[in-house]
Amino acid sequence: MMEQEVRYMKLAIDMAKQMVGQTSPNPKVGAVVVRDGEIVGIGAHMKAGEDHAEVHALNMAGDKANGATMFVTLEPCSHFGKTPPCANLVIDRGISRIYVATLDPNPVVAGRGVERLKQAGIDVHIGLLEEEATELNPFFNHFMKTSLPYVTLKAASSLDGKTATTTGESKWITGEEARRDVHHSRQEHDAILVGVQTIIEDDPQLTTRLPFGGKNPTRIILDTHLRIPRSAKVLNDREAQTLIITGSQVAMDQIEEIQSEYVQVIKLEAESIQIRSLLERMATIGITSIYVEGGATVHASFVKERCFQQLITYLAPKIIGGFTSPSIIGGAGIKYMDEAVDLQTISFEQIGDDLKIVSVLKEG
Amino acid sequence: MMEQEVRYMKLAIDMAKQMVGQTSPNPKVGAVVVRDGEIVGIGAHMKAGEDHAEVHALNMAGDKANGATMFVTLEPCSHFGKTPPCANLVIDRGISRIYVATLDPNPVVAGRGVERLKQAGIDVHIGLLEEEATELNPFFNHFMKTSLPYVTLKAASSLDGKTATTTGESKWITGEEARRDVHHSRQEHDAILVGVQTIIEDDPQLTTRLPFGGKNPTRIILDTHLRIPRSAKVLNDREAQTLIITGSQVAMDQIEEIQSEYVQVIKLEAESIQIRSLLERMATIGITSIYVEGGATVHASFVKERCFQQLITYLAPKIIGGFTSPSIIGGAGIKYMDEAVDLQTISFEQIGDDLKIVSVLKEG
Repeated sequence: MMEQEVRYMKLAIDMAKQMVGQTSPNPKVGAVVVRDGEIVGIGAHMKAGEDHAEVHALNMAGDKANGATMFVTLEPCSHFGKTPPCANLVIDRGISRIYVATLDPNPVVAGRGVERLKQAGIDVHIGLLEEEATELNPFFNHFMKTSLPYVTLKAASSLDGKTATTTGESKWITGEEARRDVHHSRQEHDAILVGVQTIIEDDPQLTTRLPFGGKNPTRIILDTHLRIPRSAKVLNDREAQTLIITGSQVAMDQIEEIQSEYVQVIKLEAESIQIRSLLERMATIGITSIYVEGGATVHASFVKERCFQQLITYLAPKIIGGFTSPSIIGGAGIKYMDEAVDLQTISFEQIGDDLKIVSVLKEG
Repeated sequence: MMEQEVRYMKLAIDMAKQMVGQTSPNPKVGAVVVRDGEIVGIGAHMKAGEDHAEVHALNMAGDKANGATMFVTLEPCSHFGKTPPCANLVIDRGISRIYVATLDPNPVVAGRGVERLKQAGIDVHIGLLEEEATELNPFFNHFMKTSLPYVTLKAASSLDGKTATTTGESKWITGEEARRDVHHSRQEHDAILVGVQTIIEDDPQLTTRLPFGGKNPTRIILDTHLRIPRSAKVLNDREAQTLIITGSQVAMDQIEEIQSEYVQVIKLEAESIQIRSLLERMATIGITSIYVEGGATVHASFVKERCFQQLITYLAPKIIGGFTSPSIIGGAGIKYMDEAVDLQTISFEQIGDDLKIVSVLKEG
């Protein structure tokens, strides 16, 4: 019996997982309705503002929902947002038993949906495949708990930790497969962030280029003194929104000159950019996750303020060497080993010829 | 039937594998004798100058060897070395069929042993589990083919490729398990090599410290100007032979002053140390493998001359950062990406909290 329950919840998780990069700022959620040992409805949340997973699954089930069991990866909502509360719908359609993998990560509302279901007499089971379901939504969970975007630092280097040659040549360190993987990561995040130096040197598009398409994240450029070349692709290609972050001393006429339908300049309050203030500001405009693509100085500023959750490194099987060639993290560095930032490696795999290592900031 | 043959050869390989670090300059070899579906003799070569694998296995089999089948990981030798040729013994004891995984890697003698067995009427099969058997002896195979020692570069760094903080603090980057793994690698190689700067800064013992003991490799110190402190542990602890390699300009009286029963100074012909000449010289004194533990400048000189076969990197899950903190490979570096040294990653695994990546120089 338990085996079957696991199977249904796995299906709900698998469906949710496929919605990567398309539900933000909402979480990925999947739902399955089962009656008399047969699946009668399946659903997943696909886009913010559109139906939640429970709604899709219950609509598919129709009258068969009455007396059925529901499996859902996240606690049904109990509040009126862009759509009516799912908890009410679950009750109205006559679901008699429900398996909820995880409670709402927002501490203010956690448990409220479940409470309402219980009060309506529904048999509620919490925690089936909780870990897998939690892992569906690292960005959403982090944003709900901290009100700050989830930050991923991304770096690509040779096995000896170098990102470019002594003359600054960096194309290409990693292979095609690893570079395609980067485009997947871009799609998953709400925003991509680079320093203005990267724009000056490489003039990248910072868009998601995948075979089937996929949304382009907002482009964030750290540019304290508004040095960005007016010809930069991110200012002119209209492929995605571009946010230029500057210090407080930049003149308003300069800012007005550069702004457009697709380009917005955000002046922070201090003369130099403080990462923490930047993240707070980004949260207020609904950015729940940021993919930081460097360079070394930008990465160092996030590391110094411990303002990141995850580091993804791609290591290419080659040696660049050289005392002066750049590494992935610049800045002043540390004097003593106990000041090193401790991470925990959560996965490593070969992608093409390269190695991808995913590490998260160690808590505590 | 083939299944059983694979099983016997696997046993021969497994036994040989366990002789890691104790057979040099000889290869690791295993042998199994089978008669009427039962194993009647097993053996492995354990130490240079002592019996070969075939001798042990045939002795164990006694009279049962007559008419039996032998499985051996390496072609039986056909020449008189420190022991009589095994091919003769195999014939004399009446073996009627033999499976040989690999031919002798020495191009001068390859195939001679097998030829002799065939001439004696033995049914010879070559190539069973050839790949696994070849992998038993990377050092021996390389030395036989090139007459140069096999060189392993070893490095330990943070995930961002740094080997120390800005003040030079490097203890400890990696965890206990990774450091123990280094002692296993030391034991596998004939020699450990470091630059004199490492001796000046850390005064290491460069010995193998494993729970069950194990031989200490010869210690090689690159010291162009004979700057080694006379109080250095490697000069005084008598734990292993120490070779100090200098340039041609070092005075004889300085050399005589430092030499002892355990310490030898080897003056190369040029003023600065050329890695290729060094390796040729080491080969003449029977060193078939060298484990290079750095620092960054020493590694860079091996990389620059492409004088290495393998790079082992231990990556610790931490960030050190800093533009001036040292990386694993120093030197002048390269200007253009197509000058990068191409490697091939052959394994990666987690050791404790750290990641161990083994890469080999890409041929061609």
